[in-house]
Amino acid sequence: MKSTIVAVGTEILFGQIANTNAAFLSKNLNDLGIDVIYHYTVGDNPKRVAKTVTEALKESDIVITTGGLGPTQDDLTKEVIAEAIGKKLVQNDEAFERMQKRFLAQGREMTENNIKQAFLPEGCIAMQNDYGTAPGFISEVDNKIVIALPGPPFEMKPMYEAYVRDFLSAKSEDAICYKFVKTLGIGESTLETEIIDLIDKQTDPTIATYAKAGEVTIRITSKRKTFAEAEQAVDACIEEIKKRVGKYMCAVGDKNTEEELVNKLKERGLTLSSAESCTGGMFADTIVSVAGSSAIFDRGLVTYSNQAKIDELGVKLDTLKKYGAVSEEVAKEMAQGLHKASGSDICVAVTGLAGPDGGTLEKPVGLVYTAILCKDKLICKENRFAYADRDTLRHRSVNAMIKMVYDVLGDK
Amino acid sequence: MKSTIVAVGTEILFGQIANTNAAFLSKNLNDLGIDVIYHYTVGDNPKRVAKTVTEALKESDIVITTGGLGPTQDDLTKEVIAEAIGKKLVQNDEAFERMQKRFLAQGREMTENNIKQAFLPEGCIAMQNDYGTAPGFISEVDNKIVIALPGPPFEMKPMYEAYVRDFLSAKSEDAICYKFVKTLGIGESTLETEIIDLIDKQTDPTIATYAKAGEVTIRITSKRKTFAEAEQAVDACIEEIKKRVGKYMCAVGDKNTEEELVNKLKERGLTLSSAESCTGGMFADTIVSVAGSSAIFDRGLVTYSNQAKIDELGVKLDTLKKYGAVSEEVAKEMAQGLHKASGSDICVAVTGLAGPDGGTLEKPVGLVYTAILCKDKLICKENRFAYADRDTLRHRSVNAMIKMVYDVLGDK
Repeated sequence: MKSTIVAVGTEILFGQIANTNAAFLSKNLNDLGIDVIYHYTVGDNPKRVAKTVTEALKESDIVITTGGLGPTQDDLTKEVIAEAIGKKLVQNDEAFERMQKRFLAQGREMTENNIKQAFLPEGCIAMQNDYGTAPGFISEVDNKIVIALPGPPFEMKPMYEAYVRDFLSAKSEDAICYKFVKTLGIGESTLETEIIDLIDKQTDPTIATYAKAGEVTIRITSKRKTFAEAEQAVDACIEEIKKRVGKYMCAVGDKNTEEELVNKLKERGLTLSSAESCTGGMFADTIVSVAGSSAIFDRGLVTYSNQAKIDELGVKLDTLKKYGAVSEEVAKEMAQGLHKASGSDICVAVTGLAGPDGGTLEKPVGLVYTAILCKDKLICKENRFAYADRDTLRHRSVNAMIKMVYDVLGDK
Repeated sequence: MKSTIVAVGTEILFGQIANTNAAFLSKNLNDLGIDVIYHYTVGDNPKRVAKTVTEALKESDIVITTGGLGPTQDDLTKEVIAEAIGKKLVQNDEAFERMQKRFLAQGREMTENNIKQAFLPEGCIAMQNDYGTAPGFISEVDNKIVIALPGPPFEMKPMYEAYVRDFLSAKSEDAICYKFVKTLGIGESTLETEIIDLIDKQTDPTIATYAKAGEVTIRITSKRKTFAEAEQAVDACIEEIKKRVGKYMCAVGDKNTEEELVNKLKERGLTLSSAESCTGGMFADTIVSVAGSSAIFDRGLVTYSNQAKIDELGVKLDTLKKYGAVSEEVAKEMAQGLHKASGSDICVAVTGLAGPDGGTLEKPVGLVYTAILCKDKLICKENRFAYADRDTLRHRSVNAMIKMVYDVLGDK
């Protein structure tokens, strides 16, 4: 089955927010074996909304809209869809009562606009909204499915979970399996060269690569009659990829490299601490973003100033003067000082130039030293990242640190 | 002038990434007075890319594509656009030479795939890529403009700045001005109630609010004959808003609250350090993300374990035992210990429960203590955030810390 996601919202066309709803829905639809072939975003303009929905229904079996269900004048998705699928809007009693209760509880008066929200296309499945006033709906017409969801993600997601997933799951015939392989430490084109024969002959499973700040993700997808068949095909393909680029592979499946790393450390009962300069806490933040990381992460010292490096990590003033803050020597002393302070099994440190200013010919922006200390073994790596913006360089540095921890764990 | 943004990339339709490029471009096009009427996303499927670009050119004067310019097999935007606008692809010498140099410098060999990237539609304006291998281009055909940009944001944005902005600016007739007002510490609906009369009577300037993890942004937009006129109207409106909600306003204009904060601290010659538990370095990372923050940010101690709180910040074991790690007492001792360690003018600390596990009836997930120490004045605040996911709660906590620093600076 093919699907299109239509976002209705001027705020997206103004660039105020990114369309994260489309990402959430796409991921979920793909999980169900439903192909997403287009995303559209259109403003609060009745003619364009109508055109877009009608157009989407031509090529897709399922059209999901987000937004435009609110109480205000410019919220018109429902009216437009109802007209496009030839349905009248009728009052939904449960939605009306819920709304009444909600307003009563807040001591607010219900306006004409709010009542409008309780109207839905006749014959639809009404989806009640536990986190806002606007209900959504599912309508089926001529073998096509139209699903209207609210715009705010915290209203949309629970409604999807409560109603849409099961509804669509029952409709989908194909079983799809896809897995991600996340690699660190190898460029996209080099990686592709290594697996080009697999890519060239791909029909099913299909292989796609995607690069971001030092991490290259490989997505392997198979669509078969049963999930077990699809998964078997994907796993066989991953085994093949592993033969070529196994030493760069960090996480397989749905996990991020940081989630997988936290898992590995947990399994082995190892603790981790970090000392950061240029990344400013981004490494610690990345690790702590993983629920349950408290079991393995002890501390992260963001020693941004030289004085902080001296105070917190015992970096020598001499070393700073002689080699500069961005140097192999300082990175190593940071890791050693961190180990002294924390006693953690694995201590990782970083110092570098994230720019945009401060670079010299000898030490350009993008020069980053990462060091790791584990069981008396101290390793330092000089990274010379291609010039990029501050944020990208900091991300790359964090990924280089994560890769070092993986390498120390020695399990590829 | 009307424009459409077309993203080419299966990774977006798979939901692996959100289309942040569209947000960036939309914001910039609106700045130039160019209306964005659609966003489209389409996969690496030649037929659908062709259909989408052709369709977009019907209703829009300008079509901007992102993605599909890479060296791999599934990168085909250029070929499809060239065909849609009836242009041959010819080798661009500068792009070819740049690519040669790049590969030489990195000691890599240039593959057939890479050479393909140096081909552009004949007669186009070539846009060289300083952050990657794929050049972009601007083609004008029959009063329509087609602009092709690379997909990775760190390649796309600099290319937009270097070539596209000036090119489009020269084409646009209207002058638009909009400014953002960023508020912290007030909910969206409360804020809206305070300025509802301004919202109700809006024609130009228009006012829109948008909430995210404890920060509410107000966008004030005016479209007039000259930029000066538009800016005057926006500024007058901001003055009016300031009268109502001035004490929550942190940043006005294009700056983030953290950028504005770093500026304010710089102006006053004050230094800042942080001690974090539940936010795991996100506060430090947010501050360090601002270029030039090294002038004011000294250190950030991520004391995730209790032992780290004791070692690094001198939090008393007794206090931890008696009140628990998530308590006013511990937050205060963290700020005090941080001051002792760093001597920074402003020391801010946080401890809380970000979930998803670990909450109790007495101390639920979302309970976060933020403390600040400045000139012997120690303030602690108990925040009880509504239940949300780990990431949102950590963001809210960071915003609460930022707001505390603003409040201590006392300049609203």
